[in-house]
Amino acid sequence: MSIITLTTDYGLKDHFVGALKGKILSEYPEATLIDISHYIDPFNTVEASYILGASYASFPKGTVHIIGVDMELNKENQHIAIQWNDHYFIAADNGILSMLTQKMVIQKMVAINIHDRLHSEASDMDVFVKVACHIAKGGMLNVIGKEIQTIKQVTELQVLVGENGTYLSGNIIYIDHFGNVVTNISKKQFLEIAKGRPYEIVLRTKNIKTILPNYSAIASSDKYPIKNYEGEKLALFNEAGFLEIAIYRSNPSKVGSANSLLGLNYRDSITIKFL
Amino acid sequence: MSIITLTTDYGLKDHFVGALKGKILSEYPEATLIDISHYIDPFNTVEASYILGASYASFPKGTVHIIGVDMELNKENQHIAIQWNDHYFIAADNGILSMLTQKMVIQKMVAINIHDRLHSEASDMDVFVKVACHIAKGGMLNVIGKEIQTIKQVTELQVLVGENGTYLSGNIIYIDHFGNVVTNISKKQFLEIAKGRPYEIVLRTKNIKTILPNYSAIASSDKYPIKNYEGEKLALFNEAGFLEIAIYRSNPSKVGSANSLLGLNYRDSITIKFL
Amino acid sequence: MSIITLTTDYGLKDHFVGALKGKILSEYPEATLIDISHYIDPFNTVEASYILGASYASFPKGTVHIIGVDMELNKENQHIAIQWNDHYFIAADNGILSMLTQKMVIQKMVAINIHDRLHSEASDMDVFVKVACHIAKGGMLNVIGKEIQTIKQVTELQVLVGENGTYLSGNIIYIDHFGNVVTNISKKQFLEIAKGRPYEIVLRTKNIKTILPNYSAIASSDKYPIKNYEGEKLALFNEAGFLEIAIYRSNPSKVGSANSLLGLNYRDSITIKFL
Repeated sequence: MSIITLTTDYGLKDHFVGALKGKILSEYPEATLIDISHYIDPFNTVEASYILGASYASFPKGTVHIIGVDMELNKENQHIAIQWNDHYFIAADNGILSMLTQKMVIQKMVAINIHDRLHSEASDMDVFVKVACHIAKGGMLNVIGKEIQTIKQVTELQVLVGENGTYLSGNIIYIDHFGNVVTNISKKQFLEIAKGRPYEIVLRTKNIKTILPNYSAIASSDKYPIKNYEGEKLALFNEAGFLEIAIYRSNPSKVGSANSLLGLNYRDSITIKFL
Repeated sequence: MSIITLTTDYGLKDHFVGALKGKILSEYPEATLIDISHYIDPFNTVEASYILGASYASFPKGTVHIIGVDMELNKENQHIAIQWNDHYFIAADNGILSMLTQKMVIQKMVAINIHDRLHSEASDMDVFVKVACHIAKGGMLNVIGKEIQTIKQVTELQVLVGENGTYLSGNIIYIDHFGNVVTNISKKQFLEIAKGRPYEIVLRTKNIKTILPNYSAIASSDKYPIKNYEGEKLALFNEAGFLEIAIYRSNPSKVGSANSLLGLNYRDSITIKFL
Repeated sequence: MSIITLTTDYGLKDHFVGALKGKILSEYPEATLIDISHYIDPFNTVEASYILGASYASFPKGTVHIIGVDMELNKENQHIAIQWNDHYFIAADNGILSMLTQKMVIQKMVAINIHDRLHSEASDMDVFVKVACHIAKGGMLNVIGKEIQTIKQVTELQVLVGENGTYLSGNIIYIDHFGNVVTNISKKQFLEIAKGRPYEIVLRTKNIKTILPNYSAIASSDKYPIKNYEGEKLALFNEAGFLEIAIYRSNPSKVGSANSLLGLNYRDSITIKFL
């Protein structure tokens, strides 16, 4: 079995995702196709990188991940394919893969160079389909591209460590379906800097003093039913390993969410102050 | 072939559904994965139960249904797996499965007890994946759980039968994509109580006096084209067997729907008066 | 491998799409099911026809396409199945297939006549499932229907050619996920009428004088980074071969789109004036 995953900003109303799958199955009928997301905010490379980072490791090694976000070939955006942690990623060189892999070793990276071998009407997606099927069938990266040494680095939205580790300051990089907000502060970095000191997550309303192990841990007392805690704000490290600020049992369309109730938006900064 | 269906409130923007599928395929590559819905209203157990009840029987016997709605393990919510009508369901014990199965015999029910056998970072979803793959591969329920005799009963939103069968009063339990509203009054219960008497479905605007066999039956006269009936209100028993109040050829974003035009909302009561 | 594609206006919140897949897999476990779109605007046959036309050829020949839009059987809407360009399509005879196939030869068309052979509670979708599985397994059309010579013709939204080819006037038939608007003016028709003459696409704001080969071609100068061109309007022939008016790197929920910024809506007319 070869799995090819799809992450795009195409949405599900248009025909693009269906057509993409048709093209892959025409080329490689045995492929198993899995959607990761087609609702990446249009052209938002930060979101695409977060979503892939949070999910790729759930798939078996050898999985091929197609990323259809800001992928039109142009003078700034070449098409690349990389092997990283024994997974394969195909994307435009627009920062998604450098944000994903961060400073960790990339096993192999190539600039895709098969464009001239396809028919003259071939789209950017046709190129990605060809490359994905080639890799999924067990083909080598250097058959479809020329080895490169670097990919485009993106430096925005970095976590800042305050002087002498007095604070950590990150940004909101994702707002999820429940309106919970995810920052780029990882559990790993937090533990390294915190060194067991007490801390506060600074918010406009009352600060949060404890990062919980899971959502239900907000129910601190056994005296009350869980229902009593609905709507309370909390912080935890989510499954992707990043600090998340949430509303317990959040329902954005009814009672509101961390996003709406706490006024926390994409790119806003979030600071953890150590005491 | 083993089918595993997925019903969650995760939405399709986030990576959760993709990651869930990756985990299942990592554990059991031969599984056939089918989405039932990922747009259950967040934490809405009534909706989850309705959606499953309306769809599970369309799948072959032996299908495993994962329900990811309000599933975090906590003091009130244990994880359970049941066999019912030769299908398998995995959920938290939060009322979804008792509303689904109602008073009908459950073949087997267990409280899942494999949590300690998984790695320490395992999430609630990891537990469900493990259980689902075990069952889909033909494993027994009592290998992954301890047999129990009851599950949590939920008593809200019951249909009321008026004194001497003078009326039936139910609630709107679901509003569909077309804005049509579905009640918890079943065709079976209606027929039992009605015993052929005339009736009226009481609405703020003109009552409905006939429950139609299908939507197009609103076109009562052959003299006019079907188009003339667009926008008219009607009632029918939908495919799931429940009373639905609809607008003919409803388009919520354009001309409005039963929900918007008739002011019928989730949980509102609907009465059928017998004459 | 037999592929069955699904195009409906059911949306993804309700259980309908999941139930449909369950029914197909119950009947034909080996089917490969691919969603084209479930967000066709309710009962919008023009959209359904555009989406299918833009995607069907991406699938292998022999693929079976189920179209669940305005499909309830009634006095005006019989169920039909056709073979066209070596693909199979199952739909109600409501204009979708005549708009799709236009004046091009249909290999075979039948009026489906198996309704009486199914169980008495069978829904319209059950009929389509039965027919789709029959064809996907290699069955003949005339086993499930009676050959017919014509299907319902729809004449709305035709492209007008001005006297002596002075202009082409079409309509907006689709607004995509990015808010870009697609017209029914095809590249083929444009080239035939233009015969190399200069032209202007007439808009309320400044006219567009060049149809670009791709989106990034809006970056006409190498002096500036691509980012500088974000938000500019442009025209191109999209992958489906139709004239599209777009905003470069459009994000409808943030900076706006061709739809919102240029005030271009579904069914609006768009004129290309030849000079």
